[in-house]
Parts: sequence; structure tokens; C-alpha cells
Amino acid sequence: MASLAKFPNYTNPTLDSRRISHLHSRATTFHGQISFRNSNLSLDLKLNSKRSSRGMRMAVSASLIEPDGGKLVDLVVPVGPTREVKRREAERLPRVELEKIDVEWVHVLSEGWASPLRGFMREAEFLQTLHFNSLRLDDGSVVNMSVPIVLAIDDATKRSIGDSTKVALVDRKTNKIVAILSDIEIYKHNKEERIARTWGTTAPGLPYVEEAIKNSGNWLIGGDLEVIEPIKYNDGLDNYRLSPAQLREEFEKRGADAVFAFQLRNPVHNGHALLMTDTRRRLLEKGYKNPILLLHPLGGFTKADDVPLSWRMKQHQKVLEDGVLNPDSTVVAIFPSPMHYAGPTEVQWHAKARINAGANFYIVGRDPAGMSHPIEKRDLYDADHGKKVLSMAPGLEKLNILPFRVAAYDTKKKKMDFFDPSRKDDFLFISGTKMRTLAKNRESPPDGFMCPGGWKVLVEYYDSLTPPETNPKFREAVPV
Amino acid sequence: MASLAKFPNYTNPTLDSRRISHLHSRATTFHGQISFRNSNLSLDLKLNSKRSSRGMRMAVSASLIEPDGGKLVDLVVPVGPTREVKRREAERLPRVELEKIDVEWVHVLSEGWASPLRGFMREAEFLQTLHFNSLRLDDGSVVNMSVPIVLAIDDATKRSIGDSTKVALVDRKTNKIVAILSDIEIYKHNKEERIARTWGTTAPGLPYVEEAIKNSGNWLIGGDLEVIEPIKYNDGLDNYRLSPAQLREEFEKRGADAVFAFQLRNPVHNGHALLMTDTRRRLLEKGYKNPILLLHPLGGFTKADDVPLSWRMKQHQKVLEDGVLNPDSTVVAIFPSPMHYAGPTEVQWHAKARINAGANFYIVGRDPAGMSHPIEKRDLYDADHGKKVLSMAPGLEKLNILPFRVAAYDTKKKKMDFFDPSRKDDFLFISGTKMRTLAKNRESPPDGFMCPGGWKVLVEYYDSLTPPETNPKFREAVPV
Repeated sequence: MASLAKFPNYTNPTLDSRRISHLHSRATTFHGQISFRNSNLSLDLKLNSKRSSRGMRMAVSASLIEPDGGKLVDLVVPVGPTREVKRREAERLPRVELEKIDVEWVHVLSEGWASPLRGFMREAEFLQTLHFNSLRLDDGSVVNMSVPIVLAIDDATKRSIGDSTKVALVDRKTNKIVAILSDIEIYKHNKEERIARTWGTTAPGLPYVEEAIKNSGNWLIGGDLEVIEPIKYNDGLDNYRLSPAQLREEFEKRGADAVFAFQLRNPVHNGHALLMTDTRRRLLEKGYKNPILLLHPLGGFTKADDVPLSWRMKQHQKVLEDGVLNPDSTVVAIFPSPMHYAGPTEVQWHAKARINAGANFYIVGRDPAGMSHPIEKRDLYDADHGKKVLSMAPGLEKLNILPFRVAAYDTKKKKMDFFDPSRKDDFLFISGTKMRTLAKNRESPPDGFMCPGGWKVLVEYYDSLTPPETNPKFREAVPV
Repeated sequence: MASLAKFPNYTNPTLDSRRISHLHSRATTFHGQISFRNSNLSLDLKLNSKRSSRGMRMAVSASLIEPDGGKLVDLVVPVGPTREVKRREAERLPRVELEKIDVEWVHVLSEGWASPLRGFMREAEFLQTLHFNSLRLDDGSVVNMSVPIVLAIDDATKRSIGDSTKVALVDRKTNKIVAILSDIEIYKHNKEERIARTWGTTAPGLPYVEEAIKNSGNWLIGGDLEVIEPIKYNDGLDNYRLSPAQLREEFEKRGADAVFAFQLRNPVHNGHALLMTDTRRRLLEKGYKNPILLLHPLGGFTKADDVPLSWRMKQHQKVLEDGVLNPDSTVVAIFPSPMHYAGPTEVQWHAKARINAGANFYIVGRDPAGMSHPIEKRDLYDADHGKKVLSMAPGLEKLNILPFRVAAYDTKKKKMDFFDPSRKDDFLFISGTKMRTLAKNRESPPDGFMCPGGWKVLVEYYDSLTPPETNPKFREAVPV
């Protein structure tokens, strides 16, 4: 992650205040005109009518999907003297050290991406997640929750906690107190079972398992979280880290009557862009007046051969600057979750978190959150299972799932287009691996595959990994 | 299973017709007097009132819990000429061979234990089972379904099916046509993922995996099942194999106002018996007038070191004859499902199937459907996870879960009793392994551990395995 320091501190171009107010004034003229909604949006409509029956005036906010559990969770201690009080309280508590991924989860929880979850999972939540990919709430309703959000501790930490009902969570790298976990519950961390039920395999080499589970403690600690102050990374990208509440505010300001989320952890090529603009077109056809795209790159842990966040953000910025995506109808923000690479299990988490951020449409592609099997020569997941599981997942009934149409490079039209099976020989499929190989070798992809500015960023990234004087073939043999 | 042939063909003593009619007449006097129900039975009450609101007279049947999906599935072709028509149709169809366990699943499906499932799972059902342990029905309601009920076929069979939309299912052992599967769907059988998500481990040596998955085909075939005639085993125990419909009829005849199910795959000792009689006592205290016990041993595939069904049935019979359980309030029947040994995942199936058979109370013990880890020195599942998962499982909300109180041998009272932690040294825990070792060595357990008649059956069973002249120490070394 050495590249992070090199990255200039820039402002979020999709949040330019002038553009926002312009859009806002334009968007507000649409209110009251939203008369047509197609039948598969009935749940969305129900939410609206529920809200208006409370006597609220029909405002823009009424069109945003309701967060899971009805209210967005916010676990950050309010600005003011309470923070200092909490910090002093935490100093007297037994300490639990957080690894980098743990801090990312504290961030995720603190802003309510996992609403209605109010802290690291206790056993009842952990078991429901593993077995049912969902949680039943007190009122009998069900919310989706497919990925365990848990905190592991080792035997020594467990002993040091003793009978305390609260602990302080401390960032191991900075030694700074991050949060208090209250009303704690400590229970067994059966790693094998957790891995098998989350990934559908226990093969060695799963990136998240290697990073965060394999060497973690044999206990899990759950409880209610109070985060002393908002999590910041100081990497020049914090202004892209909009919380679900901030995103909702932004969508309301823009007068969005539909929000469609696009989760990604890779550079955007023109196939993606086509898909996003086509989705907007389809939503306009359905009668929506102002559908807003949430272009939402994942910002937490990713595997070593993925392009790092800072370079991806630079690339996404170019895509907007080059006009491939329209900044007027796009919000770019960072989704702070770490990546599990758990395919059909994880795609539910990716979708659920975006409901909490206000998205009522979710674009799902081929093999979402998938990867190659770590030891067998095949993909870990069936490419279609992600969208199938997503469409049947408990607690996601209110979300409109938009399955990808496959885009490929049309060698006749010399651009990315939806694949047409009737003239399949005209199409070229450029995989992520192929794309990375081209960029690494400073070769150019066919014209129209990616905007030139975006491609340049990719080449620069790979250049930064391989100094020109170093022969790549010898790099691995050089002793460290 | 050589012991099966030795077993005399006897009638089901709990189904003696005179006793039934006596009980029936006694029970009917209770109708209309059922005024008190405790609050955790509200769902049961709702079902009753729903039924009465349809204008039905308040009859005994109204107190039985509704089967999943509202109607009990019955997939057996009705008696009459249709059977011959179907058989002739099947003869012209591509053939799929059934192993022993597959036939057991056909049996399970045919009688509606898995209602509302109407055949081997298609991919949508398989995925929902693996990820959510439940199925969403067309009306949006959810039923529990935790264990995949699937049929594997190999590449050659898949090719032989070609474009046919129907296949004939043929018992491989007898070469007899068993059923027709219609409107078929063939999809990939990812064994690793199926095993990991069902068992929470992929360690080699899981009994069901070794028996039915490891060497099975790489495809699964789902579809709608029509079973030509009822599945019979001709082992002298078929009269104990009551279908859910027959059980419901029996409970109605007896005027049951509560049915509590006890799933087992082991001999009944006095600790079990204490628990069952105590449950009945508690139900009577709650205001039920005629709670009936469904003593429901599992009859399908079990692992090699479990006591075979025929010997267990003999043992259960002795327990009733010796008066340890009261035949007047007990129905003994065989649950035809094969055993997965999948702990918290499987216990849901065991409970769900009993809802379909009319049980509204389910007794759950320590580590239900559990076993030792196949390669590590520990239990595969946390002993408490079964009851926790069961109490939170989607689709089982209407079932009353009755967690076990731990029973042990009280050396002071010389009988099995509920464990009293205040004088823990007085109690002796006799594990299944300990029990088997005693019986194998013809040693006696402490007085009051099991009724003498039941114990004698166990000793006889182990005697049948080890001829007296053979020294057990040498048995394993003798070449076969």
C-alpha cells in the first residue's frame, strides 16, 4: 500500500456543491409528477404510503428505501464533552486489540451499513448469519445478514477480560482507543465451521481467511459498540467515505427518485459504463424522473493482486472526467467494508449494505464477489449462483435486483456493447486477467475498451510496481 | 443388517385398536373444555381460530398443527388402474437408478414429510436450502428446509436423458420402477460446496458423505415426483412406518390436544423416559388434557456403529412392555428419513418433518444429530448449537421447542434423575459409548439405568455381532 502516500489529496468531484444545488433545484420540480411505477416496485410504493400516512408532507426523502430495522444505526459518540468522558472510561477497561480489518468493521458498524446491528455479533446473531444468512428481529421481521461481523480474541485476552462486562477496543497499530464494547458476550470461535458455512469450502488460500481468521483467536466477543469518534484513514480519500446517512442526504438533495448501486473492486471499463448508463435509461423508461447511480467501490481489505483503492479511485475519477459516466447523475463514494470473496454469500451483504445507504436498485453481474478456487483449476462459485441467491435472499425482498447483461468488445463497432449471440464471432471477451496483463506489459487494449485517461492510470499503477531497471523475471528471486 | 431377517413380524402395540377406541371415547369428552393455553402457544391457537372461522365445527382435528404449506403432500399414485398406466409410461422413459438412500428419500417425499416439497429439489430449492435453510413459497411465506433432498446422476445418465422432460426412477437393487420424475431440471452437483454448507466441515469420514455423496454423480436432477405405489421394506417393520397422514389420523382418533415428538436413533434408557414423562406432566400442568408422545425412531440410513433399526424397535417395545413409558399416551412409529449427522442443520429437518406429522411440541437435547469430528479429537458441533439454531430457525416459529433438562444416574436414589448441580458428585453420566461398551462386554449398567428387558435386547444385539468363540481382540486381524 506504499502507493497510498503518493496519491494527491483531492476533493470529490461528484460532490461539487454548485452542481448539487443546481441538480437539487432541477430535481425538485419533479415532485408530485411521479405518477407511474411498474408493478415490481410495489414494496417501494408501500414504504412511501406508510411514510405519508404518518402525516409527513410528501418530500423527496419519502422516496428513499427504508433502512433495515426502520432506522439507520449510528454508533459514533456525539461531538462534545461526552467523547472525552467515554475515552476516559475506556482507559480503565480491559483492552482488546484491533487488527486493520477489525477497524474496518468498526467503521462499517459505526455508520449503520449493517443496520440494525449495533455492534460485533453475539452468538445468536452469529449462528443466524451462518445458518440462515438473516436475522429475525423482535417484531418478527427478518433482515438480511449473510457475512459474520465478529471480533476474535485469544485465550490471554479472554483471561484479561475476566468478569468485566465492557472492554475498550484499541487500534493495535496506533495504540489509540477506538471504541467501547458493552454488555459483552464471549463464545467459541469454531473457525472451521465459520469458514465452511461462509465460503462453502475450507480449502487453504482464501484471502480473507488467511488475513483475518487463520491466525485469529479461539474466541469471539460480541456486544454493543460505541465508537469514540468517526473512523478516518487520512489517505486523501476520506472525503469519498460517505456514511449511509450522508449518502441518503446527498440523494435527497439531488431529488433522486431511484438510486441504483454498482458495487465494484476493479477499474471501470466501457462495458461497465454501458451497463450503468443502460440501467439509467431503463429506469427512465419505467417512469423514474431522476435515477441516481451510486458508483460504490469497495474500500476495505482486498487481495494482493487486486488494484489498490487509491489507484482505482484515480481511475474512476478519469472515467467521470472523460465523460464516460455522467457526473450529474452519479455519486462516487467508498464502501468501507473489507472483501470476503465469498460469492453468493457475500453479494447479499453488498446489496443489504446499499439498502441502508438508500439504494433501491442493485446491479448484479456474473460471479459477484467470486474468485478462482484457491487450489482447484476452476472458479470457486457457479457464475449464476450470485444473482440467483440474491433474488431469493431473505430480507432483500424490497430491493430490486437488476441482473447484468453481458457486455463484450464488439470488433465490428469497435466499442463495448451488449453481447449478441447471433454474431458471436464479432465479440471479444477481455477478462480481468487479460486486462491486467495488457496494462502490466504497457500494451494497449482495443480502442473503446476503456477511456484513454482511465487506461493511463492503470498503466501507471503497474509501472509503479515494476521499476524500469528491474527485470520482472528476477524480482521474486531477490532476497528481501 | 443380517439381523433384520431374524426379527419376528409383530403388530404395533401402540396401535392396538381396542385401546385406541377406548382412548378416543375418553378423549372426546374433553372437547370444549380446553380453555387454558399458555402464552407461548399463541400460534397454535391462531391456527385453531383460523380453522374455526372457516365455518368448520370445532373438532379434534382442529387442534393439530397445520402442515407446512397448508396441505400435506401425497405423491403416491392413487390405487387403481392409474398405477398400471403410470408404470407403462415409465417403462418408455430414460432410466435413473436409485441407491438405497435415494429410495429412502423417495419414501420421505412421497408421504409429505418434506411438505410442501413435491419432488427432488431443483436448483432454486437446493440453493435456498444451502444458504437459508428455508424455502420461500409463492405467497411469500417461509417454510423450513435445512437438508438438501437431491438426486445425483452421473455424466452417462445425463447423456442418456437427453432432451426428455421426464425420467423413470428405478431401484438399482431390485430393478423395479419406483417413480416418475417430471418437468426435470438438471444442474451441477458441487459436492464440496454442498458438504461444506450442510455440515460446516469438509473433513473426510462424514458417514452420509461417504455413503451417498463422495462417489455420486456430478449432476443433480430435480423435478416433480409420482411414486407408483407406497414404498415398503418387507422387514417386518412396515406396520410401524406410519405416514404423516396416518399419524395425524391416529392423533385425532386419540383426541390428542398436544403432540410432543421425540426423535431418536439410540436405545431408550430411563433418562430419556424420565424426560418424556416429565414433558407430559408439564403439558398437563399447562392445561392440556391429552398430550400424546410420538416416540419416533429414525429408520433410514445410520452409521455402522449405531444400533440397527430392528434391534432398536425391539428395545423400544420392551420399554413399553415394562411400563417405563405409558402405551396409552404413546405412539411408536418409524421416521423413514436417512440420517445426515449434520447437527444444528439436521435438527431443523427432524423438527420440520414432525410438524408435518402433526407434532406441535419438539423435544431437543444436547448435541442433536451430532457426532465426533471425523478427524479431530472433539465433537463436531457445539452441544448447545442445536437447540439454539432450532429456536431461531425460519419456518419453525409455530413449533414449541422443549429443550432437554440433563438427566444422569443418581447414585443415591439409584435411578435416572434430572441432574442437580448442588450435589453433582452423586451423579454418574453414562455416555452412549460407555453404554455400548457395557452391553458389548455383557456387563450390567447400574440398577435403574434401563429397564431389564430393554437392556437384554442390547446385550443380545452385541452377542449377535460377536460369536462367543471369537476373541474380540483378534476379530479385526482375521482376513475376510
